[in-house]
Amino acid sequence: MLKEYPLNRVFTLVEPGPVLLVTTAEGKKKNIMTITWSMAMSFSPTFGIVTGAWNHSFEVMMKTRQCVVAVPGADLIGKAVGIGTCSGTDTDKFEKFSLSARKAEKVKAPLVAECLFNMECEVSDHIERYGIVILECVRAWENPNRPEKRTIHAVGDGTFVADGEKFDLRREMASKLPPL
Amino acid sequence: MLKEYPLNRVFTLVEPGPVLLVTTAEGKKKNIMTITWSMAMSFSPTFGIVTGAWNHSFEVMMKTRQCVVAVPGADLIGKAVGIGTCSGTDTDKFEKFSLSARKAEKVKAPLVAECLFNMECEVSDHIERYGIVILECVRAWENPNRPEKRTIHAVGDGTFVADGEKFDLRREMASKLPPL
Repeated sequence: MLKEYPLNRVFTLVEPGPVLLVTTAEGKKKNIMTITWSMAMSFSPTFGIVTGAWNHSFEVMMKTRQCVVAVPGADLIGKAVGIGTCSGTDTDKFEKFSLSARKAEKVKAPLVAECLFNMECEVSDHIERYGIVILECVRAWENPNRPEKRTIHAVGDGTFVADGEKFDLRREMASKLPPL
Repeated sequence: MLKEYPLNRVFTLVEPGPVLLVTTAEGKKKNIMTITWSMAMSFSPTFGIVTGAWNHSFEVMMKTRQCVVAVPGADLIGKAVGIGTCSGTDTDKFEKFSLSARKAEKVKAPLVAECLFNMECEVSDHIERYGIVILECVRAWENPNRPEKRTIHAVGDGTFVADGEKFDLRREMASKLPPL
Protein backbone atom coordinates (compact mmCIF):
# COMPACT_ATOMS: atom_id res chain seq x y z
CA MET A 1 0.00 0.00 0.00
CA LEU A 2 2.85 2.43 0.79
CA LYS A 3 5.26 3.06 -2.05
CA GLU A 4 8.85 4.11 -1.60
CA TYR A 5 9.45 7.79 -2.31
CA PRO A 6 12.84 8.98 -3.62
CA LEU A 7 15.05 10.66 -1.02
CA ASN A 8 16.18 13.33 -3.48
CA ARG A 9 12.58 14.59 -3.65
CA VAL A 10 12.03 14.71 0.12
CA PHE A 11 12.77 18.44 0.37
CA THR A 12 9.78 19.07 -1.94
CA LEU A 13 7.50 17.64 0.76
CA VAL A 14 8.73 20.17 3.34
CA GLU A 15 9.44 23.26 1.22
CA PRO A 16 5.78 24.25 0.59
CA GLY A 17 5.24 24.52 4.37
CA PRO A 18 2.56 21.91 5.11
CA VAL A 19 1.28 20.94 8.55
CA LEU A 20 3.28 17.89 9.67
CA LEU A 21 2.60 15.02 12.06
CA VAL A 22 5.64 13.70 13.91
CA THR A 23 5.69 10.28 15.56
CA THR A 24 8.09 8.86 18.13
CA ALA A 25 8.39 5.53 19.94
CA GLU A 26 10.07 4.30 23.08
CA GLY A 27 9.62 0.62 23.75
CA LYS A 28 5.96 -0.11 23.05
CA LYS A 29 4.83 3.43 23.76
CA LYS A 30 4.31 5.50 20.65
CA ASN A 31 3.19 9.08 20.37
CA ILE A 32 2.34 11.66 17.72
CA MET A 33 2.43 15.45 17.65
CA THR A 34 1.50 18.20 15.20
CA ILE A 35 4.26 20.52 13.96
CA THR A 36 3.64 23.70 11.96
CA TRP A 37 7.10 25.28 12.22
CA SER A 38 9.39 23.54 9.73
CA MET A 39 11.77 24.42 6.92
CA ALA A 40 13.59 22.89 3.98
CA MET A 41 17.18 24.10 4.14
CA SER A 42 18.75 22.67 1.00
CA PHE A 43 18.03 20.22 -1.81
CA SER A 44 19.10 17.38 0.49
CA PRO A 45 16.70 15.27 2.59
CA THR A 46 17.80 17.26 5.68
CA PHE A 47 15.36 19.77 7.12
CA GLY A 48 14.49 21.58 10.33
CA ILE A 49 11.51 21.55 12.67
CA VAL A 50 10.95 23.61 15.81
CA THR A 51 9.90 21.76 18.94
CA GLY A 52 10.87 21.59 22.58
CA ALA A 53 10.09 20.41 26.07
CA TRP A 54 6.53 21.75 25.73
CA ASN A 55 5.83 18.74 23.49
CA HIS A 56 5.63 15.38 25.28
CA SER A 57 7.26 13.72 22.23
CA PHE A 58 10.34 15.92 22.40
CA GLU A 59 12.15 14.03 25.15
CA VAL A 60 11.67 10.67 23.39
CA MET A 61 12.76 12.14 20.06
CA MET A 62 15.96 13.46 21.56
CA LYS A 63 16.64 10.26 23.48
CA THR A 64 15.99 7.83 20.62
CA ARG A 65 17.36 10.28 17.99
CA GLN A 66 14.56 9.11 15.68
CA CYS A 67 11.12 10.10 14.47
CA VAL A 68 8.78 9.83 11.51
CA VAL A 69 7.54 13.02 9.87
CA ALA A 70 4.24 12.50 8.05
CA VAL A 71 2.34 14.84 5.72
CA PRO A 72 -1.43 14.68 6.28
CA GLY A 73 -3.93 15.60 3.58
CA ALA A 74 -6.57 18.26 4.12
CA ASP A 75 -9.07 15.52 5.04
CA LEU A 76 -7.08 14.99 8.25
CA ILE A 77 -7.16 18.60 9.40
CA GLY A 78 -9.52 17.86 12.31
CA LYS A 79 -7.25 15.07 13.52
CA ALA A 80 -4.12 17.24 13.13
CA VAL A 81 -5.67 19.96 15.28
CA GLY A 82 -6.96 17.39 17.79
CA ILE A 83 -3.48 15.83 18.04
CA GLY A 84 -2.01 19.29 18.61
CA THR A 85 -4.39 20.13 21.43
CA CYS A 86 -4.11 17.08 23.68
CA SER A 87 -1.08 15.48 25.28
CA GLY A 88 0.58 12.09 24.96
CA THR A 89 1.12 12.13 28.71
CA ASP A 90 -2.45 10.93 29.26
CA THR A 91 -3.71 9.95 25.79
CA ASP A 92 -3.00 7.22 23.23
CA LYS A 93 -3.42 9.54 20.29
CA PHE A 94 -3.26 6.83 17.62
CA GLU A 95 -6.27 5.21 19.26
CA LYS A 96 -8.09 8.42 20.04
CA PHE A 97 -7.80 9.69 16.46
CA SER A 98 -8.17 6.29 14.74
CA LEU A 99 -4.79 6.47 13.03
CA SER A 100 -3.00 3.33 11.85
CA ALA A 101 0.59 2.95 12.99
CA ARG A 102 2.67 0.95 10.51
CA LYS A 103 6.15 -0.42 11.05
CA ALA A 104 8.88 1.75 9.57
CA GLU A 105 11.96 0.24 7.98
CA LYS A 106 14.87 2.21 9.39
CA VAL A 107 13.49 3.73 12.61
CA LYS A 108 11.37 2.53 15.53
CA ALA A 109 8.87 5.40 15.33
CA PRO A 110 5.76 4.34 13.39
CA LEU A 111 4.54 5.45 9.98
CA VAL A 112 1.03 6.93 9.80
CA ALA A 113 -0.78 4.95 7.11
CA GLU A 114 -3.44 7.62 6.52
CA CYS A 115 -0.92 10.31 5.59
CA LEU A 116 0.08 11.23 2.04
CA PHE A 117 3.79 10.89 2.78
CA ASN A 118 5.95 9.52 5.60
CA MET A 119 9.61 10.36 6.16
CA GLU A 120 11.69 8.13 8.44
CA CYS A 121 14.14 10.49 10.10
CA GLU A 122 17.20 10.56 12.30
CA VAL A 123 17.92 13.54 14.54
CA SER A 124 21.23 14.90 13.30
CA ASP A 125 21.53 18.12 15.28
CA HIS A 126 19.77 20.38 17.80
CA ILE A 127 20.10 24.16 17.79
CA GLU A 128 18.96 24.62 21.37
CA ARG A 129 18.83 28.38 21.32
CA TYR A 130 15.94 28.32 18.85
CA GLY A 131 14.51 24.87 19.47
CA ILE A 132 15.45 23.83 15.94
CA VAL A 133 15.84 20.06 15.52
CA ILE A 134 17.68 19.06 12.35
CA LEU A 135 16.32 15.86 10.83
CA GLU A 136 17.83 13.70 8.13
CA CYS A 137 15.34 11.59 6.23
CA VAL A 138 16.69 8.10 5.62
CA ARG A 139 13.66 6.48 3.97
CA ALA A 140 10.45 7.95 2.60
CA TRP A 141 7.05 6.57 1.63
CA GLU A 142 4.11 7.74 -0.40
CA ASN A 143 0.52 6.60 0.00
CA PRO A 144 -0.82 6.94 -3.55
CA ASN A 145 -4.30 5.76 -2.58
CA ARG A 146 -5.62 8.76 -0.65
CA PRO A 147 -8.37 10.55 -2.57
CA GLU A 148 -7.49 13.88 -0.88
CA LYS A 149 -4.16 15.07 -2.30
CA ARG A 150 -4.19 18.65 -0.94
CA THR A 151 -1.91 19.41 1.99
CA ILE A 152 -2.76 22.07 4.57
CA HIS A 153 -0.87 25.13 5.80
CA ALA A 154 -1.29 26.56 9.30
CA VAL A 155 -1.69 30.32 9.45
CA GLY A 156 -0.96 30.31 13.18
CA ASP A 157 -4.17 31.94 14.37
CA GLY A 158 -6.29 28.78 14.29
CA THR A 159 -7.10 29.09 10.60
CA PHE A 160 -5.65 26.87 7.89
CA VAL A 161 -5.46 26.96 4.12
CA ALA A 162 -5.38 23.98 1.78
CA ASP A 163 -3.44 23.79 -1.47
CA GLY A 164 -5.27 25.48 -4.34
CA GLU A 165 -4.36 26.37 -7.91
CA LYS A 166 -1.13 24.91 -9.26
CA PHE A 167 1.42 26.71 -11.41
CA ASP A 168 4.09 25.00 -13.50
CA LEU A 169 7.23 27.13 -13.93
CA ARG A 170 9.64 24.25 -14.33
CA ARG A 171 10.96 25.57 -17.62
CA GLU A 172 11.63 29.05 -16.19
CA MET A 173 13.38 27.59 -13.14
CA ALA A 174 15.38 24.84 -14.81
CA SER A 175 18.68 26.71 -14.36
CA LYS A 176 18.23 26.88 -10.56
CA LEU A 177 17.08 23.42 -9.63
CA PRO A 178 18.70 20.01 -9.38
CA PRO A 179 17.30 17.31 -11.70
CA LEU A 180 14.53 15.41 -9.86
CA MET B 1 -1.63 53.16 0.79
CA LEU B 2 0.33 50.79 3.08
CA LYS B 3 -1.23 50.18 6.46
CA GLU B 4 0.70 49.26 9.57
CA TYR B 5 0.41 45.57 10.47
CA PRO B 6 0.65 44.46 14.12
CA LEU B 7 3.98 42.88 15.08
CA ASN B 8 2.31 40.21 17.19
CA ARG B 9 0.69 38.84 14.01
CA VAL B 10 3.89 38.78 11.95
CA PHE B 11 4.55 35.07 12.60
CA THR B 12 1.23 34.32 10.85
CA LEU B 13 2.71 35.71 7.61
CA VAL B 14 5.64 33.28 7.71
CA GLU B 15 4.09 30.18 9.30
CA PRO B 16 2.04 29.06 6.25
CA GLY B 17 5.25 28.85 4.20
CA PRO B 18 4.74 31.40 1.41
CA VAL B 19 7.32 32.39 -1.20
CA LEU B 20 9.08 35.52 0.08
CA LEU B 21 10.88 38.40 -1.59
CA VAL B 22 13.78 39.87 0.39
CA THR B 23 15.19 43.32 -0.32
CA THR B 24 18.48 44.86 0.77
CA ALA B 25 20.14 48.24 0.24
CA GLU B 26 23.67 49.56 0.42
CA GLY B 27 23.97 53.27 -0.32
CA LYS B 28 21.79 53.85 -3.39
CA LYS B 29 22.08 50.29 -4.63
CA LYS B 30 19.10 48.15 -3.77
CA ASN B 31 18.48 44.54 -4.62
CA ILE B 32 15.80 41.88 -4.24
CA MET B 33 15.89 38.10 -4.06
CA THR B 34 13.37 35.26 -3.82
CA ILE B 35 13.46 33.01 -0.76
CA THR B 36 11.48 29.77 -0.43
CA TRP B 37 13.20 28.30 2.65
CA SER B 38 11.83 30.07 5.72
CA MET B 39 10.27 29.21 9.07
CA ALA B 40 8.31 30.74 11.93
CA MET B 41 9.98 29.65 15.14
CA SER B 42 7.73 31.05 17.85
CA PHE B 43 4.80 33.42 18.33
CA SER B 44 7.25 36.34 18.28
CA PRO B 45 8.12 38.42 15.18
CA THR B 46 11.44 36.54 14.94
CA PHE B 47 11.81 33.98 12.17
CA GLY B 48 14.43 32.21 10.07
CA ILE B 49 15.33 32.18 6.39
CA VAL B 50 18.00 30.18 4.63
CA THR B 51 20.36 32.05 2.33
CA GLY B 52 24.08 32.32 1.70
CA ALA B 53 26.87 33.56 -0.47
CA TRP B 54 25.13 32.09 -3.55
CA ASN B 55 22.70 35.04 -3.31
CA HIS B 56 24.14 38.42 -4.31
CA SER B 57 22.00 40.08 -1.59
CA PHE B 58 23.50 37.97 1.18
CA GLU B 59 26.69 39.96 1.63
CA VAL B 60 24.80 43.27 1.88
CA MET B 61 22.26 41.77 4.27
CA MET B 62 25.00 40.57 6.60
CA LYS B 63 26.94 43.85 6.34
CA THR B 64 23.98 46.18 6.90
CA ARG B 65 22.24 43.73 9.29
CA GLN B 66 18.95 44.75 7.68
CA CYS B 67 16.45 43.65 5.07
CA VAL B 68 12.78 43.78 4.17
CA VAL B 69 10.87 40.52 3.78
CA ALA B 70 7.82 40.89 1.53
CA VAL B 71 4.99 38.46 0.81
CA PRO B 72 3.93 38.51 -2.86
CA GLY B 73 0.47 37.48 -3.99
CA ALA B 74 -0.06 34.74 -6.56
CA ASP B 75 -0.34 37.42 -9.27
CA LEU B 76 3.40 38.07 -8.81
CA ILE B 77 4.51 34.47 -9.29
CA GLY B 78 6.16 35.20 -12.65
CA LYS B 79 8.11 38.09 -11.14
CA ALA B 80 9.12 36.01 -8.09
CA VAL B 81 10.51 33.30 -10.35
CA GLY B 82 12.18 35.88 -12.60
CA ILE B 83 13.81 37.55 -9.57
CA GLY B 84 15.02 34.15 -8.41
CA THR B 85 16.63 33.28 -11.72
CA CYS B 86 18.72 36.39 -12.47
CA SER B 87 21.38 38.12 -10.40
CA GLY B 88 21.66 41.56 -8.83
CA THR B 89 25.29 41.61 -9.88
CA ASP B 90 24.29 42.71 -13.38
CA THR B 91 20.57 43.58 -13.13
CA ASP B 92 18.47 46.28 -11.46
CA LYS B 93 15.69 43.88 -10.59
CA PHE B 94 13.24 46.54 -9.37
CA GLU B 95 13.43 48.10 -12.82
CA LYS B 96 13.48 44.82 -14.74
CA PHE B 97 10.38 43.50 -12.96
CA SER B 98 8.56 46.85 -12.66
CA LEU B 99 8.42 46.75 -8.87
CA SER B 100 7.99 49.93 -6.82
CA ALA B 101 10.50 50.43 -4.03
CA ARG B 102 9.05 52.46 -1.14
CA LYS B 103 10.97 53.96 1.77
CA ALA B 104 10.79 51.85 4.91
CA GLU B 105 10.59 53.41 8.34
CA LYS B 106 13.14 51.55 10.43
CA VAL B 107 15.53 50.05 7.88
CA LYS B 108 17.26 51.24 4.71
CA ALA B 109 16.14 48.29 2.57
CA PRO B 110 13.05 49.21 0.53
CA LEU B 111 9.49 47.99 0.86
CA VAL B 112 7.91 46.41 -2.24
CA ALA B 113 4.65 48.29 -2.79
CA GLU B 114 3.09 45.53 -4.93
CA CYS B 115 3.37 42.89 -2.19
CA LEU B 116 0.59 41.93 0.21
CA PHE B 117 2.80 42.41 3.27
CA ASN B 118 6.22 43.90 4.03
CA MET B 119 8.28 43.17 7.14
CA GLU B 120 11.13 45.52 8.05
CA CYS B 121 13.74 43.26 9.63
CA GLU B 122 17.01 43.35 11.50
CA VAL B 123 19.44 40.43 11.30
CA SER B 124 19.73 39.15 14.84
CA ASP B 125 21.75 35.97 14.37
CA HIS B 126 23.36 33.71 11.78
CA ILE B 127 23.60 29.94 12.14
CA GLU B 128 26.41 29.51 9.63
CA ARG B 129 26.43 25.73 9.61
CA TYR B 130 22.99 25.67 7.99
CA GLY B 131 22.86 29.11 6.37
CA ILE B 132 19.99 30.08 8.65
CA VAL B 133 19.66 33.86 9.12
CA ILE B 134 17.51 34.85 12.09
CA LEU B 135 15.46 37.99 11.43
CA GLU B 136 13.58 40.14 13.88
CA CYS B 137 10.75 42.12 12.36
CA VAL B 138 10.64 45.65 13.78
CA ARG B 139 7.84 47.13 11.66
CA ALA B 140 5.30 45.54 9.34
CA TRP B 141 2.96 46.78 6.63
CA GLU B 142 -0.07 45.49 4.82
CA ASN B 143 -1.22 46.52 1.37
CA PRO B 144 -5.00 46.06 1.64
CA ASN B 145 -5.60 47.15 -1.96
CA ARG B 146 -4.30 44.16 -3.89
CA PRO B 147 -7.12 42.24 -5.57
CA GLU B 148 -5.12 38.99 -5.42
CA LYS B 149 -4.99 37.88 -1.77
CA ARG B 150 -3.65 34.33 -2.27
CA THR B 151 -0.02 33.70 -1.41
CA ILE B 152 2.06 31.06 -3.19
CA HIS B 153 4.05 28.08 -1.93
CA ALA B 154 7.09 26.71 -3.74
CA VAL B 155 7.19 22.94 -4.11
CA GLY B 156 10.88 23.06 -4.98
CA ASP B 157 10.68 21.33 -8.35
CA GLY B 158 9.64 24.44 -10.31
CA THR B 159 5.96 24.03 -9.52
CA PHE B 160 4.01 26.24 -7.13
CA VAL B 161 0.67 26.08 -5.38
CA ALA B 162 -1.53 29.01 -4.40
CA ASP B 163 -3.67 29.20 -1.27
CA GLY B 164 -6.98 27.40 -1.72
CA GLU B 165 -9.83 26.46 0.61
CA LYS B 166 -9.76 28.01 4.10
CA PHE B 167 -10.62 26.23 7.34
CA ASP B 168 -11.45 27.99 10.60
CA LEU B 169 -10.49 25.95 13.66
CA ARG B 170 -9.94 28.90 15.98
CA ARG B 171 -12.35 27.56 18.56
CA GLU B 172 -10.68 24.12 18.63
CA MET B 173 -7.21 25.71 18.93
CA ALA B 174 -7.99 28.48 21.41
CA SER B 175 -6.16 26.71 24.24
CA LYS B 176 -2.89 26.59 22.28
CA LEU B 177 -2.61 30.05 20.76
CA PRO B 178 -1.81 33.51 22.09
CA PRO B 179 -4.59 36.10 21.72
CA LEU B 180 -4.10 37.97 18.41
